[in-house]
Amino acid sequence: MTVKQLSLPDLVDGCLELGVPGVGLWREPVAEYGLAAAARLVRGAGLAVTTLCRGGFLTAVEPAERAAALDDNRAAVDEAATLGTDTLVLVSGGLPEGSRDLAGARERIADALAELAPYAAERGVRLAIEPLHPMFAADRCVVSTLSQALDLAERFPADRVGVAVDTYHLWWDDRVGEGIERAGRGGRIHTFQLADWTTPLPAGVLTGRGQLGDGAVDFRWFAAAVAKAGYRGPVEVEIFNDGMWARDGREVLAETVARYRAHAA
Amino acid sequence: MTVKQLSLPDLVDGCLELGVPGVGLWREPVAEYGLAAAARLVRGAGLAVTTLCRGGFLTAVEPAERAAALDDNRAAVDEAATLGTDTLVLVSGGLPEGSRDLAGARERIADALAELAPYAAERGVRLAIEPLHPMFAADRCVVSTLSQALDLAERFPADRVGVAVDTYHLWWDDRVGEGIERAGRGGRIHTFQLADWTTPLPAGVLTGRGQLGDGAVDFRWFAAAVAKAGYRGPVEVEIFNDGMWARDGREVLAETVARYRAHAA
Repeated sequence: MTVKQLSLPDLVDGCLELGVPGVGLWREPVAEYGLAAAARLVRGAGLAVTTLCRGGFLTAVEPAERAAALDDNRAAVDEAATLGTDTLVLVSGGLPEGSRDLAGARERIADALAELAPYAAERGVRLAIEPLHPMFAADRCVVSTLSQALDLAERFPADRVGVAVDTYHLWWDDRVGEGIERAGRGGRIHTFQLADWTTPLPAGVLTGRGQLGDGAVDFRWFAAAVAKAGYRGPVEVEIFNDGMWARDGREVLAETVARYRAHAA
Repeated sequence: MTVKQLSLPDLVDGCLELGVPGVGLWREPVAEYGLAAAARLVRGAGLAVTTLCRGGFLTAVEPAERAAALDDNRAAVDEAATLGTDTLVLVSGGLPEGSRDLAGARERIADALAELAPYAAERGVRLAIEPLHPMFAADRCVVSTLSQALDLAERFPADRVGVAVDTYHLWWDDRVGEGIERAGRGGRIHTFQLADWTTPLPAGVLTGRGQLGDGAVDFRWFAAAVAKAGYRGPVEVEIFNDGMWARDGREVLAETVARYRAHAA
């Protein structure tokens, strides 16, 4: 998503050229290219598919809406399995229209996980709950902290449900260190994602993530924390940024690798 | 600030007409009207000045900048005393330019409080640390949760340093209930402020607060929680909203009172 202006073949070429060993994919560009073709292309090039983004949006109350969300998540699991990744990232969903019941919404996520986790496990896919920054709590994700994500994940076996640790969403939290330790101890860090926090935020706040090194996040602190917690998996860079999307994608990819080396590796 | 388009005399008239018994003031309009004149006007009308907003911005590293901030906070304390309010609200300040050290910034706030709290106490003024929503952590306030604010406040006597509980900043946090209980137990809830959370957020995110009832906040839950924690002080409505500021101020004031009765009282 950091270089969504690149076609899938260009993305693969760019990764090979720069020595990037794996790539996290999003469902929409995969569907556009064709699921089977995308799987062949990426894995044929020797690249790992680190994660698939994203399932989730599991907070609906209305039964038909809820059933549709579960269907869509089962489809996402199938896609993850076809792509050969072991991890589907879940963005839980916000409050239903007019609702103010955060606790109830979080409980519905747990109910949905109970249905989805066994389905995913049969296909070799783990679910990674991604806490999103509290500014998304109303409209996108009622799971706002690593602690909340772990409270949900720990109701299930660690090889079925874990968490995504994303610096952009968690950097402000003085309890994130203990959360990472707890997640690591339980074997529940299923992916580690990087983006920087920059201000001012744009309208809608979705596309204001910063290139590594441009903002407030201490990436080395995070990298050390997940390493100390036993995480040895891939590190993904996931930046939504209108300015970066408007530039040449290969150039942005090269810059991102350089920034990763300078600020996080 | 909810009706900043009103002159101070119009604000006082509006409060009297609507039976609003007190008003939280901001330093800038007070300075513009004249400090002594503002004090005479508001208190002469029989209105309480519930709080003065705001001091703070205490995270600078550079000595001259730091000294200037302390001077400005002492001036704010003096203004609070002259206005006859016992509470100065503090917005702690963000990360200094280029810094990524949240813990260090929070420690500098504690150092500043150690200098300011005795000065304020001599003048009958308490300092209320206001945790701001985590989306302001980089550029405005490194204190993001009630728990963090209490960690700072509890280093000082409760009649010197407490917290501001603002629904807008805290509504998303599943630990806010235990924070309110802890704050109440210690006698540290120095003010209780209301605004609703609405989306999409505007660019810069500062002026996107919602009128009571328009968003995701469960005000009755908060009101019950602070009451149960022993809080009997004023309830302030503090909304920054471009749309509300563009309307007739007296109409907005009346609407706010009606919304308060419908959603929070």
